[in-house]
Amino acid sequence: MKRVDLRRSVQESNDAVAARNRELFARKGIYVMNLIGSPGCGKTSILEYTARHFDGRFAAIIGDVKTTLDAERIAACGVEARAIETGGGCHLNAAQIALVIRKLPLADLDFLFIENVGNLVCPSAFDLGENIKVAVLSVPEGDEKVRKYPDLFVRADVVFINKTDLLEHCAYDIERVRGDAAKARPGVRVFATSASAGAGFEPWFDFLRETRERAIAGSQ
Amino acid sequence: MKRVDLRRSVQESNDAVAARNRELFARKGIYVMNLIGSPGCGKTSILEYTARHFDGRFAAIIGDVKTTLDAERIAACGVEARAIETGGGCHLNAAQIALVIRKLPLADLDFLFIENVGNLVCPSAFDLGENIKVAVLSVPEGDEKVRKYPDLFVRADVVFINKTDLLEHCAYDIERVRGDAAKARPGVRVFATSASAGAGFEPWFDFLRETRERAIAGSQ
Repeated sequence: MKRVDLRRSVQESNDAVAARNRELFARKGIYVMNLIGSPGCGKTSILEYTARHFDGRFAAIIGDVKTTLDAERIAACGVEARAIETGGGCHLNAAQIALVIRKLPLADLDFLFIENVGNLVCPSAFDLGENIKVAVLSVPEGDEKVRKYPDLFVRADVVFINKTDLLEHCAYDIERVRGDAAKARPGVRVFATSASAGAGFEPWFDFLRETRERAIAGSQ
Repeated sequence: MKRVDLRRSVQESNDAVAARNRELFARKGIYVMNLIGSPGCGKTSILEYTARHFDGRFAAIIGDVKTTLDAERIAACGVEARAIETGGGCHLNAAQIALVIRKLPLADLDFLFIENVGNLVCPSAFDLGENIKVAVLSVPEGDEKVRKYPDLFVRADVVFINKTDLLEHCAYDIERVRGDAAKARPGVRVFATSASAGAGFEPWFDFLRETRERAIAGSQ
């Protein structure tokens, strides 16, 4: 089983770097979220809306196979944003994050959002040193995605169901998705949002505030 | 550069099997298409609509990380459909196809559709022995996907822009996508469709008929 061993070796070296990232984030008091979802599900739009309406100090690292379009969108909101172009790579890895965070003003941050490469499969297996994984789904993708891509949803602490403005135009059973997500990961937090309409974000902002408070309390 | 060498070795062994698949398909007179797109872009819906309205003899192989839901949808249209569950694998490979086609009634087929795992990144690098790659995009994903995922679009002979019924609810410049696709791959055929509304499929059906005629003419 040569192939499995190679994969394991790649993952073990990634995990070692991820552990160092995690230690650095904890020391600096930064809460880190790894956003994972398909191309076009709205990861960047969720970050844009959060940047414009949430009162917190954060930065973003944006992974893309090609182009820095998404990082430019976040930077245009006045947020420190760094792009990682993977040049074909289907996910971010911990070493790429370790390189980029050297350039971030870590002392000034409470949160760091890492937007992974648009891909519902590969990024879920690679720890970046984050506190939590955030899965982003969108209504037009269809309501069976939790069942079809379990590797992400057994690990995701938060699930967004984005583009709820399209619910009336798509066959989509939002309760089915909530149920599947809770079954895959008991205790998961689900936020139903429309980034384009600016709907459903208050519970997410509350979650970020509570998360930050818990992180501070935990480190005292 | 250990990692690059390993990848190359995996790809070379894949390419050898793909070449054997291709030879078999040519001998049997089967035109094979490899459909690649994000989760929820409408690959299965396009095949369903084609199964119900196109008069041609075809079978389908449906790849998914988990579940056989999509293969069941295609089989329900009366089409011979086989599922490949990759169990975490982010793309189909030529060896999986070689195993499955043994079970298909190849003598009775003019076309074979292979629906790859929902992923805009990884499947593009793996030859399955197909005649052409068919990239599937959808309107709600946004209109910058050709630029952001060039590895697929430099190789795709056909591009679908699906879910055109949502054009009036999404900011989407269809001409931009057509232009980007033509730039990535000169001569690409672009079909703008709505599988749910059954719109835009006649040019695709014409393409399939012409393709089949050319294949027959080429083999005589």
